Amino acid sequence: MTGAEKRREARRDQVLDAASACFVEHGFHGAGMAKVAKKAQMSVGHIYHYFESKEAIIAAIVDRESELAVERFAELYALPSDEIAAAMINRAEDIVVTKSDAFQSALNLEIQAEAQRNPHIAAILQEHDKKIRGLFSNILNTKLGLTDADARTELLMSLFGGLASRVLRNPGLKREKLIPLFQSLMHNLLNEPANA
Amino acid sequence: MTGAEKRREARRDQVLDAASACFVEHGFHGAGMAKVAKKAQMSVGHIYHYFESKEAIIAAIVDRESELAVERFAELYALPSDEIAAAMINRAEDIVVTKSDAFQSALNLEIQAEAQRNPHIAAILQEHDKKIRGLFSNILNTKLGLTDADARTELLMSLFGGLASRVLRNPGLKREKLIPLFQSLMHNLLNEPANA
Repeated sequence: MTGAEKRREARRDQVLDAASACFVEHGFHGAGMAKVAKKAQMSVGHIYHYFESKEAIIAAIVDRESELAVERFAELYALPSDEIAAAMINRAEDIVVTKSDAFQSALNLEIQAEAQRNPHIAAILQEHDKKIRGLFSNILNTKLGLTDADARTELLMSLFGGLASRVLRNPGLKREKLIPLFQSLMHNLLNEPANA
Repeated sequence: MTGAEKRREARRDQVLDAASACFVEHGFHGAGMAKVAKKAQMSVGHIYHYFESKEAIIAAIVDRESELAVERFAELYALPSDEIAAAMINRAEDIVVTKSDAFQSALNLEIQAEAQRNPHIAAILQEHDKKIRGLFSNILNTKLGLTDADARTELLMSLFGGLASRVLRNPGLKREKLIPLFQSLMHNLLNEPANA
């Protein structure tokens, strides 16, 4: 990446972070480009230079999530097959902490709510979900040799996504108590046949 | 319940069903009382006779959910202790179908999104959540004798709530494949000590 490309990416990230904060604070509809610009300490015209619309900003926020997920799955793929399940389970604490982050949960909620009446956003989310599901299911199927990889993936994703809602409904959530139980559920989904 | 009370309750239910449909179709802010009245085939004045505001309608929708949950927990409570876990696990199919209902999931998402910037709705949801958590945790603790009942409750609720999001992200969700795995996870949370 050249210096100019790096600066461009840093600027884009600055806009995405500012927009995320505005969406959480004001909701998607309450967060106009002027508010995003003020938060990012840039001019509105400058923002439009990077993103043509709020929809494009949401698409980029989701893309950034996808890229991180792709990287994490690539790391898992690089491991010997018999170490993958343990490596995933070892990440339980990190997953619990990340998924139950109140800001990220609120941001995802805003994006999901917007998707309910914005078919463009809905398509972006469903595409992202399909990609993550595919990566998960593929590793469960080809690397771990599990049957019902799609269903196991759905339940892992239910568990991860469900944790995100919990922190919004129960602000007093005690994360550390969840970790051993969470690991036990992951172990269940990543190791044992359901009908054994 | 007298005939007049029954008629009143039926009318209230009619408003709640109409309002739920409007919230899902237009979002909380897009669903004005005029739309709710039209959907319920009642006059706006008649609606205000039952509910003073859209907030009061949401409170009543949540209350109706709470009452159903209280009834279901009472049924479980009435069972001998050694039959409760199996009775809960036997309900897995019903839970998967109910929790992954697309309409109900969309309605919950609208209410949760509204709670993000409406402290009154947020308080209603947190109160509801606290009540359900308490019922769950109490049965796990006093009837099943499980340690970490609160954490087990959080993970059961993550799983149930997470399923609701899954149907919105993956409309092609195959429910029947989820049931045996879901039962296995419930078994895990309702029977075994996490640190065994």
